[in-house]
Amino acid sequence: MSRPAYRRPEYHKINKDLFVLTYGALVAQLCKDYEKDEDVNKYLDTMGYGIGTRLIEDFLARSRVRRCHSYSEIADIIAQVAFKMYLGITPSVTCNNASRNEFSLILDKNPLAEFVEELPAGRSSLCYSNLLCGIIRGALEMVHLAADVTFLQDRLKGDSVTEIGITFLKKLDEKKYRRK
Amino acid sequence: MSRPAYRRPEYHKINKDLFVLTYGALVAQLCKDYEKDEDVNKYLDTMGYGIGTRLIEDFLARSRVRRCHSYSEIADIIAQVAFKMYLGITPSVTCNNASRNEFSLILDKNPLAEFVEELPAGRSSLCYSNLLCGIIRGALEMVHLAADVTFLQDRLKGDSVTEIGITFLKKLDEKKYRRK
Repeated sequence: MSRPAYRRPEYHKINKDLFVLTYGALVAQLCKDYEKDEDVNKYLDTMGYGIGTRLIEDFLARSRVRRCHSYSEIADIIAQVAFKMYLGITPSVTCNNASRNEFSLILDKNPLAEFVEELPAGRSSLCYSNLLCGIIRGALEMVHLAADVTFLQDRLKGDSVTEIGITFLKKLDEKKYRRK
Repeated sequence: MSRPAYRRPEYHKINKDLFVLTYGALVAQLCKDYEKDEDVNKYLDTMGYGIGTRLIEDFLARSRVRRCHSYSEIADIIAQVAFKMYLGITPSVTCNNASRNEFSLILDKNPLAEFVEELPAGRSSLCYSNLLCGIIRGALEMVHLAADVTFLQDRLKGDSVTEIGITFLKKLDEKKYRRK
């Protein structure tokens, strides 16, 4: 037991299905609690935010990611390191504007929604996986990067892919978000 | 993509912390929704039951567990195969009675409660990880094994270990619960 926990990746792994089904139960509970899809979406985002603010520490310790020099680099790390580490997928990244602060993560497959064939009846505005947006937002905020994170497309709504949009809100200031 | 999903274990793995934090958010939500601990416990159990009824199929496919010949064997499989597969831990198993239908799973460490230091204020009867009992109950029922599953001890309540009690309710009938 002399090795610290983050050196033992297997210890950190669990079966995805258990998580995906538990997440489904959480969303179902919120749909029961809140009549409006917007309220469920907001709650999932807020819940995710709290998770992101706690997850970032684990992420920095295990990924050993160091200072980034551009938003583009940060978006790549979210897709290639964080998504890979936490959900086992690697979304592709596109930059959506000339000032290079708007990015999209394109998910061919969304593990969170793996067992969901369609949105529940009367829930057409539900952002089923909105927890993810909150997590990204919360994690980024903990490294002093304010961002808007929302679903731009969702396969559950009939789109051909699932797309998460990330807009970084401030001018990049290296000193602020580099790792201690 | 010629290999079926269950042959690719890595695909099924995700980071535990994300699950543990999401589970915490679920319990917090239920505590908000239900004033009485008993109601939260019941709800977690019911929710777990639904998850267990779905998870069993995946479990049977991936574990390739075949017919068991005693309750004792089943308890061992739950501890050594299912817990290992889904939560990355292996509880120890004890048999608690002469007729060999009551067992305990002793968890030195409970991954679900890893980030929880104590039960929330005024929630002393909360069975924080009650989802697990429901999952076991639901999964067993799908293979025609009726069982009572409850927490007998819980570290979060000051006990020295966490102990899940499983009581099989019917006389063992091999034909009924063997895998197709």
